[in-house]
Amino acid sequence: MNDPHIAKAFDRDLEAIQALVMKMGGLVEEAIREAAKSLKTRDTERAEKVRQGDRKIDELEDLINTQCAQLLAIRQPAATDLRTVLTVMKIAGNLERIGDYAKNIAKRTEVLSHMQPIEGASSAIRRMSKEVEAMLSDALDSYIRRDATVGEDVRHRDLEVDQMYNALFREFLTFMMEDPRNITACMHLHFIAKNIERMGDHVTSIADQVIYLSTGQFPDDQRPKDNQSIYKVEGFEEADE
Amino acid sequence: MNDPHIAKAFDRDLEAIQALVMKMGGLVEEAIREAAKSLKTRDTERAEKVRQGDRKIDELEDLINTQCAQLLAIRQPAATDLRTVLTVMKIAGNLERIGDYAKNIAKRTEVLSHMQPIEGASSAIRRMSKEVEAMLSDALDSYIRRDATVGEDVRHRDLEVDQMYNALFREFLTFMMEDPRNITACMHLHFIAKNIERMGDHVTSIADQVIYLSTGQFPDDQRPKDNQSIYKVEGFEEADE
Repeated sequence: MNDPHIAKAFDRDLEAIQALVMKMGGLVEEAIREAAKSLKTRDTERAEKVRQGDRKIDELEDLINTQCAQLLAIRQPAATDLRTVLTVMKIAGNLERIGDYAKNIAKRTEVLSHMQPIEGASSAIRRMSKEVEAMLSDALDSYIRRDATVGEDVRHRDLEVDQMYNALFREFLTFMMEDPRNITACMHLHFIAKNIERMGDHVTSIADQVIYLSTGQFPDDQRPKDNQSIYKVEGFEEADE
Repeated sequence: MNDPHIAKAFDRDLEAIQALVMKMGGLVEEAIREAAKSLKTRDTERAEKVRQGDRKIDELEDLINTQCAQLLAIRQPAATDLRTVLTVMKIAGNLERIGDYAKNIAKRTEVLSHMQPIEGASSAIRRMSKEVEAMLSDALDSYIRRDATVGEDVRHRDLEVDQMYNALFREFLTFMMEDPRNITACMHLHFIAKNIERMGDHVTSIADQVIYLSTGQFPDDQRPKDNQSIYKVEGFEEADE
């Protein structure tokens, strides 16, 4: 990597891959937004578009992984450059998972459209998804600018998303206990809320990668949730990511 | 990689890393088994050991990732060797997630130990977890032997795990509707069943990696579930992994 010609070729290749990551990120942000909107408006056609759009997101991940593998094979980067390439692959993996969750919300929206609506639920879910969408946008922005401070900010906002999820979870439990006819719809809505909460975890993982790239270290409290039992509803948290 | 001395050094390093993967796999299999056993016997002490044991699994993943990154940097492998190293990192990631799910089951076991037991649930869950544990053992074995046929077999057994999950899900829904006092316990049990179902997805992902390593191609129906709607309970499937 000491030859400036090779170094330049590496940077050029990496920039092309990063452009794909940004494109993928844009599609994922749109999927989050559209999934929440179709749930709120009970718009099954819009939901179907989100489901179909996930294929494009998956293809972009495959393309990014292929190009990263080629970059590793051809340019054989070391140290920071190697770390950057591995990070790009991880971020693409996180984005793919977030896209899957959006697709899953769209699937449930279609099922829920045949059921009695649960008052206030879809608005609360949309507020939650807007926060995650904004966090994702900021996380990707901080990646491009290698800005660890934004990364830290994103990590803390994820705790708010967790709180929103816990509040919703309690609400759904109450609805189910009040009237067993609500159980099926509430189970779907609960899964949707859980999916958004997990999207937040993946955005946090992207933020962690940015902090690692900028500072060379993962945040001290890389898994803050383990110590934040105040935010938990008696064991109802999921696996860490 | 044409120099036989370098090639040998690469193989030696890779073998050391693979030994770590096998060690990690052994710990994860044990975590699955112990988590299911502690649920069935309502043994909170055993559950606590599973929770604490997850740290060791996480540490092994970190160690594997570090050693893979060093291997890439120092030996600069190309083609098949590069692919193998990337696969090892993916498999370690899958194992770490499975360990997280086992830890999560252990957490819920502690909560459930204070509730009225749901008849037959913990036995059914144990059967499901035994199947996943056996699949994982076979998947890791097929990795070491680069045996694509076992990989295919594991992928098909995952469909049975999905069926077990769906049967359990229907059962929990019925229990909840019959008596709202069952709702909280059933929600926890349902999450546990879902966690095991997801473990199966991660084992399948390991099997896919083995097939890719042995044949150079991912299975045609890499995401068989999308086309297996017969196994679905009206949209209650989760994101693909």
